[in-house]
Amino acid sequence: MSVPSHSGSRPTLEDVAAKAGVSRATASRVLNASPRVSPEAHEAVTAAVLALGYQPNQAARALVTRRTGAVAVVFSEPEPKIFDDPHFAWLIRSAARSLADADAQMVLLLVHSPEDLARAERFLAGGHVDGALMFAPHKGDQLPSVARKLPLPVVYAGRPWGPLRGLHLVDHDNEGGGVLATEHLISLGRKRIVSVTGPLDEHSAMDRLAGWQTATRAAEQDVARLTEDGGFTREGGKRAMAALLDRVPDLDAVFVASDLMAAGALDALREAGRRVPQDVAVVGFDDHPMIAPHTTPPLTSVRQDTSNQVKHMVTQLLRLLREEPIRARREVLPTVLVRRDSA
Amino acid sequence: MSVPSHSGSRPTLEDVAAKAGVSRATASRVLNASPRVSPEAHEAVTAAVLALGYQPNQAARALVTRRTGAVAVVFSEPEPKIFDDPHFAWLIRSAARSLADADAQMVLLLVHSPEDLARAERFLAGGHVDGALMFAPHKGDQLPSVARKLPLPVVYAGRPWGPLRGLHLVDHDNEGGGVLATEHLISLGRKRIVSVTGPLDEHSAMDRLAGWQTATRAAEQDVARLTEDGGFTREGGKRAMAALLDRVPDLDAVFVASDLMAAGALDALREAGRRVPQDVAVVGFDDHPMIAPHTTPPLTSVRQDTSNQVKHMVTQLLRLLREEPIRARREVLPTVLVRRDSA
Repeated sequence: MSVPSHSGSRPTLEDVAAKAGVSRATASRVLNASPRVSPEAHEAVTAAVLALGYQPNQAARALVTRRTGAVAVVFSEPEPKIFDDPHFAWLIRSAARSLADADAQMVLLLVHSPEDLARAERFLAGGHVDGALMFAPHKGDQLPSVARKLPLPVVYAGRPWGPLRGLHLVDHDNEGGGVLATEHLISLGRKRIVSVTGPLDEHSAMDRLAGWQTATRAAEQDVARLTEDGGFTREGGKRAMAALLDRVPDLDAVFVASDLMAAGALDALREAGRRVPQDVAVVGFDDHPMIAPHTTPPLTSVRQDTSNQVKHMVTQLLRLLREEPIRARREVLPTVLVRRDSA
Repeated sequence: MSVPSHSGSRPTLEDVAAKAGVSRATASRVLNASPRVSPEAHEAVTAAVLALGYQPNQAARALVTRRTGAVAVVFSEPEPKIFDDPHFAWLIRSAARSLADADAQMVLLLVHSPEDLARAERFLAGGHVDGALMFAPHKGDQLPSVARKLPLPVVYAGRPWGPLRGLHLVDHDNEGGGVLATEHLISLGRKRIVSVTGPLDEHSAMDRLAGWQTATRAAEQDVARLTEDGGFTREGGKRAMAALLDRVPDLDAVFVASDLMAAGALDALREAGRRVPQDVAVVGFDDHPMIAPHTTPPLTSVRQDTSNQVKHMVTQLLRLLREEPIRARREVLPTVLVRRDSA
């Protein structure tokens, strides 16, 4: 498409105002999506625009219908993490595909510093997108409270921190997955089951740990000794596994709360001369296609269907945009255990 | 920020038109960045807007100044490739950092299918960004010809296909890098040097191959026998290396045109029982920090400074946006050899 031209024979803003029976200023306010417009004026001007086939330029037209055809996908995470952890790549790919299927343009924004947040807020408030999918898992993150003030529908992945009232989200059953993983280790006869956790400022990490605790019935005072935060990174998983081997030398199984950390944990076990699964059985989380089948040995893991999660988020957002009824504001998707050789 | 309000006491579009001595329709056209506005009218209305402190809403204000504070980063590649090849993650991270340093919002768009292209074109033409950085390396890609028609400054990474006249770009000296890699192998006394190339519908892959050919002085009829396309993927690198081992059993060195392919080639060499570097010396390309130091053995590689390339692209784009003089439309950045154990 090219920049629209305004030839003399086309209907003008003046024609729209006359047809709608409002002042030109009011018509302009409607076209500019000003909040100070009465519903009646909005309806009359919109009807006049449609009746006359008035074609404002692309940006202005977007304002009429409040539709840019674009959806922001916002990640509130340190950039290194987004690109070193293949889980994010998978999320982005799924979002790109699901939004393309809905003929929406994915507009990816990365937010890390307070300056990033202020900049993203300006962009999101600027009428450049119709809605947003947000990934803001960390405690203390200001994005959810900023997003509440935006004139945009938003759907979250997982539970953001802060009040959930009024929020739309699609989560996975992380606690159930933690139970599944740990009960599998128990069923194999393992007695000393430790856990490498994600950072406990994320609900997903806390929920997976809660699942491990439920299944092991670990007493509160044992949790600190039997678990270690691996920060959802490969290096962190290796470091946490090494620390647990030091602290709990007789451990015979570990539930690692992400596949990326599990790859690191396998490195630590190898370096410590522990055989997997003979000496130590290992279960990961994600069942990431780029990781779980390729570790040595291949990783038993809890599958969360990321593509499906993103698809549900897009569906929920599209319903919000079309003002269609939503079945549930908060959806929780199931997880399943995928058995390979590590446990 | 909140949605701007329009209280009665603030200057209106009518006031702007009166002050500028133009019709309201003309003032509106200027505000809507219509191309059918005389430079005089544009100047008068812009002056009136500034003098009166007229505050259109955010989207409209962006049109006045043609500044949204956002820059599109467009990748025209199949999505799997973008996320399986860590080189792209590095590009995206560099772009996010360089643009944040310039207080610009990075807006990442992925383009793969013709539908994606049409959608991205609508978004880019819609006044939502001030300019674009484009990664469109493949022959036959329609993005560069679409981008020519956009009312946006664009800077390319590398050379896109098609006429280069009028384009701004920042490339690496890929041919020089291919020469460096191959001459290093020659200096080690290797006699039978083959090459795993990238897809030859990309200039960067062609240039690296040209560097190999220059250094080996391979006759035209030998090129097909001594080289194999690995498609810039790990699997492709493995497959191509296996094919070359079949076809040229006495090969003693290989220049692999990306680190990701080199990781695959090392797998193929290991499976074939060839020792690296004793039996076969290997040089990669990229010196990717996530790959080259971590292969077995660590990879000698040609470093292209991706962060620096993206920084130059951002600098060039900012100069275009500020209408400052550009030193060179086409910049070519040097490459250097980084020696590790594989050669």
